[in-house]
Amino acid sequence: MKIKKPSIAIDMDGVIADTESHFITWYYKDYGVLVNRAELFGKPESEAFPNKEAVLKFVHSPGFFRTLPVMAGAVEVIQELMKDFEIYIVSAAMEFPQSLSEKKEWLQEHFPFISWKNIVFCGDKSIIDTDYMIDDHFKNLDFCKGKAILFHAAHNATTDRHQRVHSWEEVKSLLQKELAALN
Amino acid sequence: MKIKKPSIAIDMDGVIADTESHFITWYYKDYGVLVNRAELFGKPESEAFPNKEAVLKFVHSPGFFRTLPVMAGAVEVIQELMKDFEIYIVSAAMEFPQSLSEKKEWLQEHFPFISWKNIVFCGDKSIIDTDYMIDDHFKNLDFCKGKAILFHAAHNATTDRHQRVHSWEEVKSLLQKELAALN
Repeated sequence: MKIKKPSIAIDMDGVIADTESHFITWYYKDYGVLVNRAELFGKPESEAFPNKEAVLKFVHSPGFFRTLPVMAGAVEVIQELMKDFEIYIVSAAMEFPQSLSEKKEWLQEHFPFISWKNIVFCGDKSIIDTDYMIDDHFKNLDFCKGKAILFHAAHNATTDRHQRVHSWEEVKSLLQKELAALN
Repeated sequence: MKIKKPSIAIDMDGVIADTESHFITWYYKDYGVLVNRAELFGKPESEAFPNKEAVLKFVHSPGFFRTLPVMAGAVEVIQELMKDFEIYIVSAAMEFPQSLSEKKEWLQEHFPFISWKNIVFCGDKSIIDTDYMIDDHFKNLDFCKGKAILFHAAHNATTDRHQRVHSWEEVKSLLQKELAALN
């Protein structure tokens, strides 16, 4: 009998895609100001940059989501986790309809080993039911049905809720411990 | 205290979109043969038309999903159900990436009262957790976590599993009975 693997819902922006770096780069490109990462600390992304309209403008710009850098370690760790876990990519893409095809293409380029069957683009994530959820937003983790793992980001840095991880290496070691406890 | 409404995941193709009629129309337009609905009975859609490549060709054609007719009664009944249920549109759109934006636009045109927060485009539906699921495919209903409602279609007509409904009027009366039983 095939044993069902524990499932993980993994967010895109801020988790496998390095949105923070991309905002800083695009802000510099458009406004000529290099914002220091420390300035973003504890602020919602939409309010963290000097010009408050910039972030909203970027996320509605064609190409923004398609050109996001991959978060360090995400590809390698996810490939390894797939041996023991059923991995789903779950992104709240519905808010920015133009991002749908960009996000699909981005995944195809950087994570071609993830089947279309395991990709979910949604609005809110309250009807997603997996054993684990890795996300950088409390609005998703607070109501998730499985175990919540908070991926560290400047915008979530000053609130303490859920298990926090700072890197994909940390995700790997946390989930390997979970797996050992299950067996 | 706000009482949480029971949730329903509603499929698109074959449930709120009349895919069957659209296949017949497109087949006639492309091949000059008007296929009778009775000929589709009990066959997977991909094998139901004389030319076996037609359906696959259609679902990969730009415009196919954007121009689907709305299933009779779907708009009116869903609007009414929204008073008592939390409605999610859950479509397995990932298989046909070009359909993502077409499906989003189609929903915007025909169901503008459904928030982007309540739209889910996914691959398999196994991680969707709602109280009810309305779908025309056994592959989705057989593993759903809530109560399964099979929306009648020629392709599912010869298998008997789950509660079958033949129209949106029937969906309405079934769910009104469910609601009465809950209260």
